[in-house]
This record gives sequence, structure tokens and C-alpha cells, in this order.
Amino acid sequence: MTEFFKGITPAKFEGADSTNPLAFRHYNPDEMIMGKRMEDHLRFAVAYWHSFVWEGGDPFGGQTFERPWFPADTMDLAKQRADAAFEMFRILGVPYFCFHDHDVRPEGATLAESRDRLNQIADYFETKMADGGPKLLWGTANMFSNRRYMSGASTNPDPDVFAYCAATVKACMDVTHRLNGENYVLWGGREGYETLLNTDLDRELQQMGRFLQMVVDYKHKIGFKGAILIEPKPQEPTKHQYDYDVATVYGFLKRFGLEDEVKVNVEQGHAILAGHSFEHELAMARTLGLFGSIDMNRNDYQSGWDTDQFPNSTPEAALAYYEVLKAGGFTTGGTNFDAKLRRQSLDAEDLIAAHIGGMDICARGLKAAAKMLEDDALEGPRRARYAGWEKVDYLDEGQTLDGIAARAEGLDPQPVSGRQEKLENIVNRYV
Amino acid sequence: MTEFFKGITPAKFEGADSTNPLAFRHYNPDEMIMGKRMEDHLRFAVAYWHSFVWEGGDPFGGQTFERPWFPADTMDLAKQRADAAFEMFRILGVPYFCFHDHDVRPEGATLAESRDRLNQIADYFETKMADGGPKLLWGTANMFSNRRYMSGASTNPDPDVFAYCAATVKACMDVTHRLNGENYVLWGGREGYETLLNTDLDRELQQMGRFLQMVVDYKHKIGFKGAILIEPKPQEPTKHQYDYDVATVYGFLKRFGLEDEVKVNVEQGHAILAGHSFEHELAMARTLGLFGSIDMNRNDYQSGWDTDQFPNSTPEAALAYYEVLKAGGFTTGGTNFDAKLRRQSLDAEDLIAAHIGGMDICARGLKAAAKMLEDDALEGPRRARYAGWEKVDYLDEGQTLDGIAARAEGLDPQPVSGRQEKLENIVNRYV
Amino acid sequence: MTEFFKGITPAKFEGADSTNPLAFRHYNPDEMIMGKRMEDHLRFAVAYWHSFVWEGGDPFGGQTFERPWFPADTMDLAKQRADAAFEMFRILGVPYFCFHDHDVRPEGATLAESRDRLNQIADYFETKMADGGPKLLWGTANMFSNRRYMSGASTNPDPDVFAYCAATVKACMDVTHRLNGENYVLWGGREGYETLLNTDLDRELQQMGRFLQMVVDYKHKIGFKGAILIEPKPQEPTKHQYDYDVATVYGFLKRFGLEDEVKVNVEQGHAILAGHSFEHELAMARTLGLFGSIDMNRNDYQSGWDTDQFPNSTPEAALAYYEVLKAGGFTTGGTNFDAKLRRQSLDAEDLIAAHIGGMDICARGLKAAAKMLEDDALEGPRRARYAGWEKVDYLDEGQTLDGIAARAEGLDPQPVSGRQEKLENIVNRYV
Amino acid sequence: MTEFFKGITPAKFEGADSTNPLAFRHYNPDEMIMGKRMEDHLRFAVAYWHSFVWEGGDPFGGQTFERPWFPADTMDLAKQRADAAFEMFRILGVPYFCFHDHDVRPEGATLAESRDRLNQIADYFETKMADGGPKLLWGTANMFSNRRYMSGASTNPDPDVFAYCAATVKACMDVTHRLNGENYVLWGGREGYETLLNTDLDRELQQMGRFLQMVVDYKHKIGFKGAILIEPKPQEPTKHQYDYDVATVYGFLKRFGLEDEVKVNVEQGHAILAGHSFEHELAMARTLGLFGSIDMNRNDYQSGWDTDQFPNSTPEAALAYYEVLKAGGFTTGGTNFDAKLRRQSLDAEDLIAAHIGGMDICARGLKAAAKMLEDDALEGPRRARYAGWEKVDYLDEGQTLDGIAARAEGLDPQPVSGRQEKLENIVNRYV
Repeated sequence: MTEFFKGITPAKFEGADSTNPLAFRHYNPDEMIMGKRMEDHLRFAVAYWHSFVWEGGDPFGGQTFERPWFPADTMDLAKQRADAAFEMFRILGVPYFCFHDHDVRPEGATLAESRDRLNQIADYFETKMADGGPKLLWGTANMFSNRRYMSGASTNPDPDVFAYCAATVKACMDVTHRLNGENYVLWGGREGYETLLNTDLDRELQQMGRFLQMVVDYKHKIGFKGAILIEPKPQEPTKHQYDYDVATVYGFLKRFGLEDEVKVNVEQGHAILAGHSFEHELAMARTLGLFGSIDMNRNDYQSGWDTDQFPNSTPEAALAYYEVLKAGGFTTGGTNFDAKLRRQSLDAEDLIAAHIGGMDICARGLKAAAKMLEDDALEGPRRARYAGWEKVDYLDEGQTLDGIAARAEGLDPQPVSGRQEKLENIVNRYV
Repeated sequence: MTEFFKGITPAKFEGADSTNPLAFRHYNPDEMIMGKRMEDHLRFAVAYWHSFVWEGGDPFGGQTFERPWFPADTMDLAKQRADAAFEMFRILGVPYFCFHDHDVRPEGATLAESRDRLNQIADYFETKMADGGPKLLWGTANMFSNRRYMSGASTNPDPDVFAYCAATVKACMDVTHRLNGENYVLWGGREGYETLLNTDLDRELQQMGRFLQMVVDYKHKIGFKGAILIEPKPQEPTKHQYDYDVATVYGFLKRFGLEDEVKVNVEQGHAILAGHSFEHELAMARTLGLFGSIDMNRNDYQSGWDTDQFPNSTPEAALAYYEVLKAGGFTTGGTNFDAKLRRQSLDAEDLIAAHIGGMDICARGLKAAAKMLEDDALEGPRRARYAGWEKVDYLDEGQTLDGIAARAEGLDPQPVSGRQEKLENIVNRYV
Repeated sequence: MTEFFKGITPAKFEGADSTNPLAFRHYNPDEMIMGKRMEDHLRFAVAYWHSFVWEGGDPFGGQTFERPWFPADTMDLAKQRADAAFEMFRILGVPYFCFHDHDVRPEGATLAESRDRLNQIADYFETKMADGGPKLLWGTANMFSNRRYMSGASTNPDPDVFAYCAATVKACMDVTHRLNGENYVLWGGREGYETLLNTDLDRELQQMGRFLQMVVDYKHKIGFKGAILIEPKPQEPTKHQYDYDVATVYGFLKRFGLEDEVKVNVEQGHAILAGHSFEHELAMARTLGLFGSIDMNRNDYQSGWDTDQFPNSTPEAALAYYEVLKAGGFTTGGTNFDAKLRRQSLDAEDLIAAHIGGMDICARGLKAAAKMLEDDALEGPRRARYAGWEKVDYLDEGQTLDGIAARAEGLDPQPVSGRQEKLENIVNRYV
Repeated sequence: MTEFFKGITPAKFEGADSTNPLAFRHYNPDEMIMGKRMEDHLRFAVAYWHSFVWEGGDPFGGQTFERPWFPADTMDLAKQRADAAFEMFRILGVPYFCFHDHDVRPEGATLAESRDRLNQIADYFETKMADGGPKLLWGTANMFSNRRYMSGASTNPDPDVFAYCAATVKACMDVTHRLNGENYVLWGGREGYETLLNTDLDRELQQMGRFLQMVVDYKHKIGFKGAILIEPKPQEPTKHQYDYDVATVYGFLKRFGLEDEVKVNVEQGHAILAGHSFEHELAMARTLGLFGSIDMNRNDYQSGWDTDQFPNSTPEAALAYYEVLKAGGFTTGGTNFDAKLRRQSLDAEDLIAAHIGGMDICARGLKAAAKMLEDDALEGPRRARYAGWEKVDYLDEGQTLDGIAARAEGLDPQPVSGRQEKLENIVNRYV
């Protein structure tokens, strides 16, 4: 047990009436939901970066957190951080974690040194994972923090950066593969522009498409069985990011013929920044065949930037997991808490309580969603609404505009209530 | 001359120093810009609906405009409205106009009656167009105002509405073809949803895709040579519209194999509502091979709805026309003023002055854009920024992630200034 | 019983397990909450305009609702509408209703005729109210729909409009007084500007301040005991409205010395449009001594305009009623549903179900809020957080900057966790 | 001459046709505008923090700028930074600069050490200022970066922080006074909340009001003749900041009786974040008697955070300076460039060019604004619009609602065009 989490014991399920701030009230891993254990539905993962790397800074202020492993610029401190991380995974009982290369090892002076350090940490992780630690939901490369990426990663005007990215992603995919990661994620935080005035949009998209093709090829070459996931975000840090939202990513994948090779990791906060609800992005991913995984958090509706807060609304979580269930549930994906403490939440206990609260919200949401599906509470009315389509052949091959037009003569279609409020009331019976 | 515009004579170009509120200060149709007449670059069109149909209402108040042809619910009044419209076209000297079926004729009791009335108005237009009136830039069908469309047009849960839409679009395409329209536009104001709770997203997108395929087929069947254009808009009237933005439309077209058959009509206000700049949407349309036409207006940056104001910023217009010129200029497309008077601007003179002001802004923007291109003021620095790519083969077929990764060993790429402020200063030399 | 609501019987409380869409699951008027009946806490009111006047139009489409009393342009139809309204009040069992003059009577050709009609309707209401109908929570004047108000009501550039407003408000206050209304509300939908270019901001604010002073004076003159309430809204219909938010209204009242005479009616949707949470606006109203009443609805977080939807989030309602309770609960104020059906919700049953769902959400929110207060769940930690202030005299009269500065020498204050996530988890124990 | 700016000579006015990226094209200090030198109108100031302290980081990436004086954590480096700063002031020829304590000296281990260092730097500045360097437009204290302020400065739950702030502000006011600063600014970046759940709004506002009173008292005590300015900002870093916008600050000042003692420093970017145009905030400041100074920058309209870019739109600058001129021009205030390079703009020349471009935009805006005023181009139509008010006594003392109502009988006020588009066209004649 580390000094940091001293005195905090593994969180247990105590039921809805518990007032223990460090116990689960709803997350009960073995509870069966639609024939599957709750843990296997939710597949929770903790994000290494927010909980063990982020120091509590914001654009107007510096570090607020004091952690024994900060600044983690040596391998020893990096291991101390890993000890704390795996202890928290154990306290929470999460089955998965996620990391960037940059989160887990100090960057080296050269690509080779960075890679060596990553491998050393992977060795360290392997031991811990073997020792009952969680599995790896996904790995990823941080290609946005270092100044070399300021003008883009694979979309950089400098081809040397493109090559640097290739080496970086290769190293991260290798480590993810070695650790039996179930997915590999690409978030293009610098794949976009700050101003169109200096940007060759066409060329940058070509670079990004070609890079992704090579990532997919490499996956197959090394026999990595996990999914490649793109994480859409519309903006921030840059003015515009190319992976704007799910629909945009779909078009990008289609353009480069990769729609069967790549899926999406959808984040609540990014959906909000793109002007969508979370459930919209999830429904769109399902419809377009791209549903992969989720980054669970929440964005403050009054803030214009990515706030990455822990989820705290059961009604919203219920609608999200409803879409997850409709998509058939997670296969390689899971629920990663891409959520960070507020910078005023200084204590180790805050870190634990925040995750517990988030996990409980997800559990409540899942249970409500499953019950709505089992009761056919929303799907029944939905089917009824479109039932008229069962009787017509308008969408068949061979149908023509003028052919159907001819059949419209004399029609005077009358609208039917959409019953939105009644459906909202139904949802409120479950949340 | 109608009573309404009595005393207003055709607007003339008087040069930048003119203080005549009804004269052009910058729009000079015959002025040569990059080897082409200004009029042929800009291809201005007036939108029938805002100027001759809209009554000045908003969600909290009713009609403010008093026009002799209101309520235009008889064919006589509809013709009186056409007289005023064509007189304004003549006063402004615009080469084009645009209309919805709903703008030009009162709706009939049946599809057949509505179609007959549309054809009668088309006859009336033909005479006026032959008599020196403007040409038709595009026609379109209003499938959003009538209550039958409240839950969607081609995406309606009721297949009868789908059929009704087929008949409506067929009639409008026929008329557009007859009047030698240069494009046919689809704006999906009701193709979206108010709540996901009652919506079958997958089915609705299938309906919309199939409908568009039939529109394209019908175009070829009747020999219509114009372009089919989709006009993206993210929301309003509904919570979410499927044609969210250019990138979304691209994905939709790719999904249904229509990317070579359909282009986009990009509107400034819709770009803003989608979280983009106008120039972004235009650059994206160019990059994705979808550039068709523009709806020129502006959206108030402090309002969250579609304000459809006349453009009044030269710097913004310059960046828009810069993208138009980079896309090769308009072919079938043009600059349609999808802009309406503020509801307090009651007078006929307001209507003329607003268009003149907008046309002048576009002319200033075009001239600045052309000069920047001729001077290589932005393209030179842009080429230089990406010059390193000329020397590498990273994007070639056969290149692999690990192959390029190997070449990155030992690299330490150093960032180079993006020079945004200098480029902005350069633009300001031209506007 | 009217034909419209035929077959719909008064809604009853059936408890949380009921699946009857027209029964209350949480709203139980006689249930005691913190020593007061639930009905007396919530003081529900129905808004006449949304439910009985609005026809289902939006900026891109017309009427969707079909009501036997539409277009209500005769006194007979107006009475038929009143019959339906009072029937719905009875079905819902609400203790209050609210109306604008414009909602209840067709406008006359002159001020005098409009006033006469208003008085006739007031007679009609009086009978119904005496007959067990609800009481009047507040009355108000519609000074935004008619074109005479397009450039402002009391802030109009034309003093005749100012005079017209005086007559209109006087008539509405007289009727409100006669009907024993408990408040009189002013919403300044046209008190703002569309462009600063034609606006004399200083003069318009002076007009508005003077007008409000006269309203207050008139209240005292006629002996009206209710509260005068301003309803803040930042924009829409205009680009900017002067009563932007609670803090702005406070400054306005202070400027004209009216802060003890006027309170605010806070609306959820208006708070959201102003960039605030609903609970923020309520907390600010309490802090500034302006808390009066609430317009309960919700705004879609992805829409940039006033969506006026029925509330459907218990967590949000709980935080709102928490502030209401902290403010001491309602005195003259109440919970007015300033909420309208979606335009696709065509049926009488939708209207009833929407109100029932909203009332249930409020009831759940109130119960959760009361319990949190009773448990000292949030107030305890809050008091503890500021406890240090009990021991210092820094805010006392006579303290000076340099005096306190001297006492800071040697201090090195250390931050303490703000515990936000733990507090959010606590709230989630109650909702 | 420092190594950093080596080879860059003082910028000169070369006229509109110059293509020299480091020359002024419009800013000509001695040019007379409405009887006053352009320099004396604009009173430009450079902000120390953005240009000499900020390292190019953003929430997803670290330092990009390499400056010889970084990390400036010793007094020697701080002086080296000052050398560069004053050299840039000289190159630009700006008459003013602005700074926070935190910008100019490394923080000490104690309040006393920090103060000593501040005084040493002030000595160093004094020499440079005496040697032809610019004057001090304003000083301010950074009470947001250090973790001690994470929960507020004067509004902190810990009274020790309040005391610490008193000492800090006292030291900064003393130095500002000694350096003959013309204003003292308070920006409350941490005076707000992250969550209402842990916040005592009432108490925090009381703390803030009392603190401001003490600042004002201290100003008088030491004989500081400059203005005390509050800089409104709605949010960021926190979810909500108390000095939300000009109207909110006005209410706050009125509440504490300080409206005659304190004015506002209005920033374009902050106005945008608050949902206002810059000219709105300036017009409001003028109307409420609070106009003090401006922070000139621009916010990206598509970004939801404070982008602090250099201004680049002449039309927008013209409307801003129009309000400045209507307010009587600056007295103690000026035009401070609270603007930073994009993090990709690495070079010393970028820093110079960005300021030059910004100064030119302001100069163009000022000239256009002055000409519009001289021509009575907007004020004439505005006076005419309200002319009817000259003939009535409705706003006089003694007028009553019922009295004026009586005079409305028989009136039927007819709306008059607001002519917005015509006025916009007029503005476009000047920009």
C-alpha cells in the first residue's frame, strides 16, 4: 500500500442506502443485467493521465495537486506513480485502464530512449497486471503536448514530424499489443488548424488518411486483434480539429476506404463541444457501423471548453447506455473515465470518491437502460411510429421519383402526434 | 413600374466616393477581375422568399411588413408579387433569382392544383425572363412549412409523406428544368429530429439516401444539366438536421455512392450555427470536391439562431471569395442572397439598399481576394510551409508505418513559426 | 366537459409505481414537506399562452395544432378557449394560472375596445374562478407581438408607443388586481435592440426606468398587494434585451431606486440563454434580495434559442428547488409552467401528460431538496468551509487594506480541498 | 539592443501602400484626429504578460516559445526580460505598458521577499522609464496563478487568503503609484465559483465588496490619482466569475456604493464570452458612467474560451472606437493590447508584427469612427429617430401611469422603419 492512498480500503458495494462516501451504492459487478454481469457490460477503465499525470493547472493557474510522484521526470518516480495507479485500480476494482506513452514514462532525449523507457514501464506493468491488476482497455500515443507537434502530428507541414509520429505510434502499438490491449486509440488533438491562412487543408487530410491506412496495415502485420479507434473532437486545443464528430469521421474513413477497419471512441464532452448530445453521437456511431468504445465524462453546459468532469446525471447516463445496449453492447470497447478532478479537489479521497460516484452513475444508467429495453418501453412506440413503411416498397431498387410521385396523387397525409413529452415521462419512470 | 417601388430607378455604379444610398460603390458588373467580368464571377441571385414572401414575423411577433401583394393567397396576388419581384431584379441588375414552389404560388387543395398553379406562374415567369428578366439560378421545393412535413419530408415516419415529397420535388424539378435553372437545391429543414426518443435514425437516413438517389436518377431521365445541391444546416427548425455541415454531407453522399452526383450550397449563417467559419465550410467543400454554390448572408455572432442578415463585413467576404476563387470560381453556382431585412426595416427602399450594400460587400471581397491570389500573397507562404514534403515519398503506395518509423531514428524535428499574425496583416493590406 | 378533453378525467396521485400516463407518480398535494403541504410549496400555475394560444408554428413552419377554439378571433371563441383552459386546470388540479391580455381576448380596434373585451373575459374568469377554478398567480401585458412594438414597448423611439404601453399595463394591472392576482409580471421581449447603430441606449434605459417607477407608483395607488416582477431574458426576439439576467436587473433596479419594490421571475430557459445555470440565477436572486417566482421549463442545451420545453430532469429540478427553499420558499410567487408542447405533440392527451410529467419532476426535485436541507447534507460542509471567517474581523467597519496587509506578513495560506465530486455524489444520494 | 530583437529597428509610419511587414501603414502618432494627436487618442499600451511571460502553452501542450530570459525565475533573468520588454516598447513606439507583479519578478518565499523583489524591479523600470521608456498605463496584482488562490482571492473561504490579497494589492498599488501609473486594475479571475454546491454566494460577494471598498479607501489614503478599474469577465478559468459583464459590475458597485469610485476596463474577448459585442459593453459602460479603459484583442467566434488574439477587423475596431469617442475618449484609460501570439508564432518578428498589425487596425478604426462622428453620419439619423420625445413630458417627475394612459386613448401608433441595413451601409462607407 502506498503512502498516498494510506487507509483507503477497496471499495465495496453496500447498496443504495449506504452513506459511506467510499462505497458503491449501485455498482455491483456481479449483478446480472440482461443476462450479463454488470462488470462485463460496463467494462470500466481508469485513465492514467487525468488521475496520475495532470497537476491541476488551468490556463490561468499552475499546479494545485501535490503528489509524491510529481514531477515524475525520472524512472523511479514513474514507477512510484505506477504503484499508486495500480493501487487505485485495485481500490476501485476496475477491470481496465488506459494510457498514453507520455503518461507512464518520462520522455527520453531520443526516440530510442523514449521507447526503451516505455518498454521498461511495460515490463513493470506486466508484473502488476499479472498480479491481479486490471487489463489494458487501450493504449495511445501523446502526439500533442511536445512542441514538435504544435503544427500537427501526422498533418504537420514538416514531414520529419510525420516520420516521428510513425515511430511513436509504432512503439505505442507494439506496447499495447504486448500488454494485450483490447483497442488502440488515435485522438488528433493537433490534427487540425489554428488558421486557414497558413493551412493546406487538402494536403493535411491526405497525410492523415495515409497515416491511418499505415496504422491499420501495421495492426494486421503484427497480428494485433484489437480495434483501431478514432476519438472525435471538434476543437480545443486548436480552432478546428479534423475529427470533428462521428459523422465527419465516417466521411473521412469512407474517403480513404477505412470504414470497415476503424471505429470510434465517443466522448460525452467532445459531443457537447460539437453541438450534439452524447446519445446523438452514440446513435450515429451505431447507425454508421462505427460504434467502438466510450470516454465517459461530462462537459459543463455553461463552459465552452472541455471540462472533463465526472458524470453525475443518471438521466443522461441512462440515455447513453441505452444507445450502447442498442449497439449490442461493448465488444472490445468499454467505459473509460476520461474525467479529471476539479483542480480544487486536492485529496486522495477525492480521487477515489469521484470515480466511485461516476461508476455508480453509470451503473444506475445501465440498469435503467436495460429495463427500458426489456420493457419495450421506447422501442414499441418507435416501431409503431414507422409501421406504415412495412406496407410500401418505396425504398426498393427500381423505384423512381416519377413512379412514386404518380402514387401520391390524391394523397393528403395527416400528421400524427410525435408524443415527445409522453416518451420523456416514460424515461422518467426508469431514472 | 409597380406602385411599391415607385420612384426607385435602376441602381448604377457610381464609384467608392458616392454617397447615394441606392447606388453601387463597388459592384461594377463589367469590371474585369482575373480575366473575367465581375458579374460573371459573382453571379448574384435574389431569393424570392425573404424579399417577397416573408412578412416580418419572429417567434414573438407577427407581420410587420405591409406589401400590396400580401397575403398572396390568390393567383392574382401571386402575379402582383411576381411583378414586384421582377421589378426589383431589374432595379438591382442581378443576373439570377431563386425560388421555392411555395414562394411563387398559393398552395392548392391537391397536389394537382398546386402543380397547375406552379406551372401557370412558370408561364408568367417565362414571359418576364424572356423580356430581359434574370435567369433562374436554382429552384427548390418547400417541404418544411406545411404541417404535413412536421415530422420530416423524405424522412417522415409516414410513407405517404415520402410519396408526397416525390411528387413535389418532381414538379419543382420539372419547372426548374423548363425555366433553364442552373441548379436544383435540397434543403432538409425537417430532415432531422426533435428527439431521439421517437426517431429511427437508421431508417430515416436510409429514406433520405434513397430519395436523393431517385432525385439524381430523375435529373438524368429528364436531361436536366444543372447541378443537384444539398444545403447543409445543423439545426433549426429541428434540434438536429441530418445535413449538419459539409463534412457530414460528404459522408452521407459517400455512404449512398452519390459523391459525384451532388454538390453543396454553402450558407454563411449555417456554417456559423454549425460552429464553423464560412471559409472553413467553403474550403472543406473544395477539398472534398463538393463546391457548388453559396447562400450569402451573415449570422449574428451573438445570436443562437439563423439570423439571415445581409453581409456587411468586407474582411469576411474576402476570405469567402478567396475560397470560391481557389475552387475555380462558380460554374453552375452563384451568390444567392439568402438574406432578409430586419423586421423593423419596413420600406421598399430598405429592400433595395440592403441588396445594394450586400452586393457591394461581395464585390469588395472578390476584388481583395483576386488581388491576394494574383500577388501570391498567401499561396506563396503556404507553399513554402509545406515545401519539405516535395522531398519525401512518405505518402506513396507501399510505404509502411514501420518503414517510415525506421527513418525517424535520430530525428529531432524543430518547429517553425506558423506566422499567423503576419498573414493576418497581409490580408489586411487587401481589405 | 369540453369536446376537446373528452374522456380525460382529473389526474390523481397513484404513487411511483403507477404506469398510468395520466396519473401523478410524485405530485401528492397534501404530502407534508418540511411542515408544509406540497401544493403550498410548489404553487403550480399553468401558462395560458403556450397551452391555449400557441398554434405550433416555428420560424420555418406554420400551425400544426388543431383546436376547436382557433383562431379565437371572436369573443365566442375566446370563451370556448377559456372553457378548455379551466377544464385543463381542473384536470391537473393546479392552484394557479397566468395570462397576458393578448392570450385571453381578441385585440380590439382601439385601446378602449381591447380593454372592454379584457374586462368581459375577466368577468367570465371570475365566475369560473369562483366555481372552484384556480387563482391567478400573475397577470401581464403582451407588448411584443403587435407590430406597433417592433422597436420597443416602453423603450420605443416613438413616445406614442410609450403612452400606449402605459394604457395597456394599466388595464392589465387593473384586471390582475380585480382577479386577486398575486403578482404582476413585466417581460421586456422588445425592450432591447436589434442594432446599436440606431439605438440610443441611454435614453431607452431612462424610458424603461421611468416606466417601471410609474408601474410601481400605480400599484400603490390602486392598493395592489401583489409583487411586481421583472422576468430576465438576455435576447430573443431581439439581439439584446435590457433585462439580460438577474444581476443586470439588479443593477437596473438600483439605478432607479426600485430594488425594494420589484423582484424577479426567473426562467430556466432564459438562464441557459444567458450562459447561466438555473440554480445560479435563483441563488443570485436570493442573494440580491430579488427572489420572487419561477417560470419552470427547460432549454435544450444544444439549441441556441428559447425552447420552452417541459422540465424532465430530476437532478436539475432538485438544485432549483433547493435554492427556492433556501430563499424561504415562495411567498407571492409560484411555479409557472412556461412550457409548451413540441409542435409535433398534437393531441389533447399530450397537453395533459406534459404537465403531469413536469409536475412530477418538480415534486421529485422538491422532495430531494427538502431532504438535503433537513439532513444538512450540503449546508454542513458549506458552513465548515467558511468557518475561518467566524474568527476574524476583516470585514468590519474601520478595517483598512494596509491594516489587514500588516496582519498577512508571515502567512502562507494552504489550500484545502473543495470536494466538489464528493458533494455531487451526496446530491446523487437524494435524486 | 538585446540579442532577441537584434536587427529589428523602430517601426515607422510608411503609409497605406507600404508592404514592409514591420512598418505602420495607418498608425501615425502625430496625425490629428478631431483636434487631437492620434497617439493621444489611442494611448497604446503593451501587456507585459502575454509578450514576455507566457510561454506558449495551452491545456494540451507545453511551452513552445524559446526566450533567452525563460524561465525568469531569478532576478537576473527578470531584468533580462525587462530589457527585452523595454526594447520592444521602443521599437513599437508605444506610450504605455501594463503589468502584474507576477509578470515582472519571481515570486519570493514570503510576502516580504516578493515585495522586495517587486520594488527592485520597480527601481529598474524607473530608470528605463526615465530614459524615454513608456509610462505605466496600469498596474495590477496576479491573484489567480498561485495555488493559494485556487478557491478565490478576496472571495476565498480562508480569511488568510483575504489578508494575503490585501498585502498583495497594497504592494502593487504602492508600486503603481510610485511609477505614476494612471490606473489600477482588478481582474477577478478566481473571484467566482466552480460549483455552487460548495459556495456561499452571499458571503463571497460581501467579501469582494468590502475588499473593493478598502482598495478605494487606500487609493485615497496614499493620494493615488489614477482610476480604479474592474475588468469584467464572465467565466474562465472558473465556471462563473462575479464580474460577469459591465452591467453586472454596475450592480455590484451600486450595491456597495462604489459606482462613483470605480470604472471598468472592457476587453473584447471577455465581451464575446459574455454573449455581447464589444461595442455593446463599451456603450453600456458609457451609459452607466463606468467607461475607463479597454483591453484590445479579439476572440475567435468559433472558440468557447478566451483566445486573446490581436485584433484584425477594421469594421469591428471602428465600432469600438466609435463608442470610445462617444464616451469622450480616454482620460486615464488607454488601449492595452491584452493579446498574445498564437503558440505557433515563435519568432521575435512575429511579436513585433502582431503588435504593429493590431495598432494599425486600431488606427484605421479610430479614423473611421472619427469621420463618422464628424459627418454626423450615424448621430443625425439617431437623433431623428427619437425626435418625438422632444415634444412630450412623459418622463417628467409627477407623470403617472394612469395620467399617461389617459392620453393614449385614440392613439394608434404606426411603426417607422429602423433602417438597419442603410445604417450598416453607411458604416461601410467609412471602413
